[in-house]
Amino acid sequence: MITPRTVAGTLELLPREQRIFQHMLDVIRRNYEKFGFVQIETPVFEHKDILLTKSGGETEKQVYFVQSTGGLQQGYAPDMALRFDLTVPLARYVAEHERDLAFPFRRYQMQRVYRGERAQRGRFREFYQCDIDVIGKDKLSSAYDAEIPAIIVRIFEELKVGDFTIHFSNRKILRGLLEDYGVYDGEKQTLILREIDKLDKAGRDKVRATMGELGLTQINADRLLDLVNHPGSNDQVLDSLLCIFSNNLTFKTGVGEVKATIDALRALGVSEKRTRLNLAIARGLDYYTGTVYETKIDAHPEFGSVCSGGRYDDLASHYTKSKLPGVGISIGLTRLFDVLRASDLLPDAPPSVQILIAQLDPGLSAEYLALATELRGAGFRVDTWLEQSKLDKQIKYADKSGIPVVLLLGADEKAKGTVVVKDMNAKTQSDVPRAGMIAKLREILGA
Amino acid sequence: MITPRTVAGTLELLPREQRIFQHMLDVIRRNYEKFGFVQIETPVFEHKDILLTKSGGETEKQVYFVQSTGGLQQGYAPDMALRFDLTVPLARYVAEHERDLAFPFRRYQMQRVYRGERAQRGRFREFYQCDIDVIGKDKLSSAYDAEIPAIIVRIFEELKVGDFTIHFSNRKILRGLLEDYGVYDGEKQTLILREIDKLDKAGRDKVRATMGELGLTQINADRLLDLVNHPGSNDQVLDSLLCIFSNNLTFKTGVGEVKATIDALRALGVSEKRTRLNLAIARGLDYYTGTVYETKIDAHPEFGSVCSGGRYDDLASHYTKSKLPGVGISIGLTRLFDVLRASDLLPDAPPSVQILIAQLDPGLSAEYLALATELRGAGFRVDTWLEQSKLDKQIKYADKSGIPVVLLLGADEKAKGTVVVKDMNAKTQSDVPRAGMIAKLREILGA
Repeated sequence: MITPRTVAGTLELLPREQRIFQHMLDVIRRNYEKFGFVQIETPVFEHKDILLTKSGGETEKQVYFVQSTGGLQQGYAPDMALRFDLTVPLARYVAEHERDLAFPFRRYQMQRVYRGERAQRGRFREFYQCDIDVIGKDKLSSAYDAEIPAIIVRIFEELKVGDFTIHFSNRKILRGLLEDYGVYDGEKQTLILREIDKLDKAGRDKVRATMGELGLTQINADRLLDLVNHPGSNDQVLDSLLCIFSNNLTFKTGVGEVKATIDALRALGVSEKRTRLNLAIARGLDYYTGTVYETKIDAHPEFGSVCSGGRYDDLASHYTKSKLPGVGISIGLTRLFDVLRASDLLPDAPPSVQILIAQLDPGLSAEYLALATELRGAGFRVDTWLEQSKLDKQIKYADKSGIPVVLLLGADEKAKGTVVVKDMNAKTQSDVPRAGMIAKLREILGA
Repeated sequence: MITPRTVAGTLELLPREQRIFQHMLDVIRRNYEKFGFVQIETPVFEHKDILLTKSGGETEKQVYFVQSTGGLQQGYAPDMALRFDLTVPLARYVAEHERDLAFPFRRYQMQRVYRGERAQRGRFREFYQCDIDVIGKDKLSSAYDAEIPAIIVRIFEELKVGDFTIHFSNRKILRGLLEDYGVYDGEKQTLILREIDKLDKAGRDKVRATMGELGLTQINADRLLDLVNHPGSNDQVLDSLLCIFSNNLTFKTGVGEVKATIDALRALGVSEKRTRLNLAIARGLDYYTGTVYETKIDAHPEFGSVCSGGRYDDLASHYTKSKLPGVGISIGLTRLFDVLRASDLLPDAPPSVQILIAQLDPGLSAEYLALATELRGAGFRVDTWLEQSKLDKQIKYADKSGIPVVLLLGADEKAKGTVVVKDMNAKTQSDVPRAGMIAKLREILGA
C-alpha cells in the first residue's frame, strides 16, 4: 500500500474550492476576451536552450528538467524543461509564428508554470499565471498602456475581492529626473530605483543616505522622495510633474505617456479610485522600460502585489531579429487564491450541480432519468441518484456536495402530477405542479 | 540567435484554431457539468512511486521524469514524473481525499497528460484528456453505466462531427459464455477476447482457428463469432442473448446489465441510432470488468475509437483499502482535434473577437475608447485599434484575425450621430444611427 500524497508546493483543491478557482479563471478569461484578447496555449515543456537564453539569475536556478525513461536509462542530460513563466513561451511563440499572426497581437494565456522553489508556506512549485500582452511589430502606441489597468479593474470588481488599487508609474519619469540630477549611469539609476522600491521597509532616512552614496545631492534626493510619496490624486501628481522644469526627453516622454494613460482611463470609464499614479512603483526588473503596474488589495497590503506587469521594448530578441515591443500584465492566480482563502475572502461561485433528483421509488427510475433529461434541456445542471438508498443518505450527499435543490418524486406525486422541490439553503420544501416546476427552480436558483 | 521551435509531439495552435479547440473543451465541460459532474484538477507531476505502482507495461516505459536543477547537479535520481493519464491521479486523489468527498463521486477532469512516445504523425507526447468517472464507495449501481453514453451523445452531437456511434458491450457476457463453453481460465478468456478485438483486421477464419487453439470447439467458436457479428438493433441483439440458455451467473448478470442500460438510454431520450450493442467491443485492458464503450465516427472508421471507457471493480487498490468501483470514459481531445482537422471536419466556433473599432481620426481616440466600453457593457468582445495607421491596414488585421465586424467612426459620422458598421463576411457596410447600433450588431453577430 502506497500513501497517497501530492508533491509539496502544489495546490490541489477539493471540488467546492475547485469550483471557486474555476469561477475565477472564467471571470478572468471572459474579461480578457471582452477586451479583444485571443487565447493561445503552449506546451508545458520547451527545449532547454529556448528556456535558458536569458541571463535570468534566480529563475534559471529553479528550472525543472524533463527526461524520458529511455534518456534517463542511457544517462543523457535532459533536453527539455518545464516553463517557469508564460513570457518566454510567448516570445518563442510569436517569433516562431510571426508570419501567421496579426499585429498588434493581443494574446491571453492561462496555464500553469513551474519553479523549483524551496517548499514553504505561500511558495508554489506549480501555479497558474493568467497573462495578457499586446505585442506590436516594430512599434506599439503607448495608447495601449491604459487598456491593461481597465481590464484588471473589471476583473477584480467582478471577483469581489474588496477594494483594490492599481498603482502605476512610468519608469521614464524617474530615469529622466535622475539624468537631470546628474545620474547618467544606467546601473546607478537602477540601484536608485531599487532603493525607492524598498522605501516602505527601509524608511526614508536610510533610503536618502543610500541615494547620497549613489551620487544624488540631499536636495535632489528629497525632491525625489517627496515626489514618490505624493499623496494626491492622479491629476494632482501629474500637475506636480508638469510643473517640473526639465528639458530631459526621457522625462518629458514619460510624463506625456502618463498623461495619455490618465486621459484614456477616463475615456474607458475606469473609476478614479481604482488607479493611482504612484512613482514609487519601479518594479525590480530591468525588463520594463515604460509604464509599470502593481495591484494591491487595499485592506491587505501584506498580500503584496497580486497582479503586476508593464511595458517592454523588445519581447523576443533571442529568437528573432524583428523588434517586438509590448505591454502586458499577469495575475498569479494560485497565489491570489491562496491568500484570499487564508483571509476568508474567496468570492462566491455559482454551484456546479444545481439539482439532485432523489430516488424514492426504484420502480420510477425511468421517470427520474426522463425528468433529468427534461431539466438538462431547460439548461440546468442535474445529478441523478441511481442507487437504492435511504432518502436521508441522499440528502446528506446533496448537503456535502453543496447542491442547492433536491427534487423528490414518489408514487403519490406522480399520481398528483407534482414534484416536491426541496430548497437546501432555505431549508424549505414545497409540492409544485409539474407545469410550474421549471419556473420554481429558476426562482430558487436565480437562473 | 536561437531558432524558435516547439518540442516534437506537441500540438501548438494558431489563435483561430486554438479558438476551435477551446470551443470543443467548452462544449465538453458544459455537458459534463449538465450531467452533475464536478471538476477536479491535479498537479502535472506526481511522486514516482505513486505513478509507477501499476504493472503497467507500455505506459511505464513512456514516463517523463522531472528533476530540479539542484537534484540534477547533485546527481540524484528523479523523484517525480509527469502524469501519463488522468486515471492514476484520480485514484490517488480519491484515496487521499476520501473522507472529504461525497460518494458516488462524479468527477470530470480536463488536463494534459504526457507520454514519451516515439515522434510520429498522430502520436502525441502531450495531449488533452477529458475524463468523467463516477466512483462508488463499496458499490456502484450498474444504472450509472447508461448515463455515460448519454453524455457522450450530447457532446458529439453538439460538436457536429457528423454521424457517430457509441458501441457498447459488457465483458461479463462473453466471459460467461466462454465458461459455458468450457473455457474457465481467465488468461485464456482474455486471449480469446483479444482475438475478437482483432476480428476486423485478422478475418473470421484466422480468428476461429486461434480460438480453436485456445480451447473452443469450432461450433462454439462459430456461435461466438455469429454473436459478435450480429447485425441487428440493440433490442434484437439483446433478444438473441435472452434466447441463449445458460445458467452461468456471470453471463446472466451481464445480460441483465445490458438490458438495464438499453432501457435507461431510452428513458434518457438517447436516439437509438447513436448506440450499438456490439459484443465485438472487448477493450484490450483487463482493467474493465463490465460495460465497455468505444465511439466511432461513422464515415471515418480509420480514426478508430475517439472516446473509450468502461466499468471497473476497484479504482485505487494501491492507495486505499476501501473498495471503489467506478465507471468512466475519456475523450482524447488532442488526437480527436488532429484527425478532424486532417479531414477538414473541425466544428465552427463563435469568433473570439467580435468587433474591431477602427481608428479613423486620432482626435477621436477618447470617443473610440468610450464606444468600446459601451459595447463591452452590452456583452460584446471588442478590440480597439490604437495606432495611427491607414484604414487598409486595419481592415487587413480584422480579416487576418477573423473579426467579423469593423466599426468606422469619423468626424462626419460623429456629427450625424451614426457609425458605419462593416460586415466582413457579407462584405457590406451601412451607416447606422447610434441608437440602432447594438441591435444591428446583434443581428450580424447572431448574439
